[in-house]
Amino acid sequence: MNLIPAPLERLTKELSRFPGVGTKTAQRLALYCLKNQATFPDALASALLAVKDTVGRCRVCGFIAEGDLCEICRSPSRETSVICVVEQPLDVLAIERSAEYHGTYHVLWGALSPIDGIGPAELGVERLLERVRRTGTAEVILATNPNVEGEATAHYLATALADQSGVTVSRLAYGLPAGADVEYADALTVARALSGRRAYG
Amino acid sequence: MNLIPAPLERLTKELSRFPGVGTKTAQRLALYCLKNQATFPDALASALLAVKDTVGRCRVCGFIAEGDLCEICRSPSRETSVICVVEQPLDVLAIERSAEYHGTYHVLWGALSPIDGIGPAELGVERLLERVRRTGTAEVILATNPNVEGEATAHYLATALADQSGVTVSRLAYGLPAGADVEYADALTVARALSGRRAYG
Repeated sequence: MNLIPAPLERLTKELSRFPGVGTKTAQRLALYCLKNQATFPDALASALLAVKDTVGRCRVCGFIAEGDLCEICRSPSRETSVICVVEQPLDVLAIERSAEYHGTYHVLWGALSPIDGIGPAELGVERLLERVRRTGTAEVILATNPNVEGEATAHYLATALADQSGVTVSRLAYGLPAGADVEYADALTVARALSGRRAYG
Repeated sequence: MNLIPAPLERLTKELSRFPGVGTKTAQRLALYCLKNQATFPDALASALLAVKDTVGRCRVCGFIAEGDLCEICRSPSRETSVICVVEQPLDVLAIERSAEYHGTYHVLWGALSPIDGIGPAELGVERLLERVRRTGTAEVILATNPNVEGEATAHYLATALADQSGVTVSRLAYGLPAGADVEYADALTVARALSGRRAYG
């Protein structure tokens, strides 16, 4: 006896494609849709389709955009000679929250990961190199994550950008996060904070 | 500068209505939709609308049904004289997995919770009482959760069913879960396992 109707199974399967959502969670989410059948499925479906129809990626930097260009690329007050390369759109929001950066971005929407079939072509690296060449970029800040994939991506980009004369390539600093205890920091972080130490004051 | 386009904000808000999904998680799910824009939003939206249009609640027991009646109420091999009252549809699946029960169900889709505005009317208790009266039910098994809301619901239903002559009302047994360590069991569980002890063998 198959107690769950096929359409509900299908919804569960679609929901389980979300990152971090397993079959059990997807089942609970699908039942929430059923429990709030009068309003929720319609509202969510229409929000999904609106995003699909009106939101895309910025033609220049790949960040989220409602039209052709994102808010940052459209802004006349950003320094277009600096490009900060990040893995995900949420990284842009994190860097913007710091209010320390006034340049532009380049969103890769991922990091190199051969095991997942993600190579330079999937990340559109050529588009970034072409942008650097075309716009006379002065600095590229590599702000990929400090993990295996992010480091490999930064290394690949640094090598690819080495040919471009006049472009400084930098990497976000490694060290202790603000508010941390030295006592609880892992060995690699402490080692990097030591080797990256700066003259005081 | 509002970096996130309004349609994406709206999708994030809809997704954060799912139970257990906070704003941060909803944002990540919304970006997953954007990342897989070619296929995912359409597929999920169509699955949502299919569920909304074709799946509902069983007219008799309230369990998930594709038509008028659920698979269990449609089955000729179930004992219709026994009704097991549960809070949620997933509880039905858990009891079915035990393969110990061959009666029918009644799904309340919740438990009494005055603080959330959920009273007997919201749970459709009258529909259950009417069903018991109408169908000559021999036993009602209260299988609500052993927490505050579930116990209150069981108590309410037991009181309401006390008037019905010829109906036995029972409650799922309390005790140690299978495979548990007595050492790690909480005091209330041990107390209930003691008071509910049975002659051995």
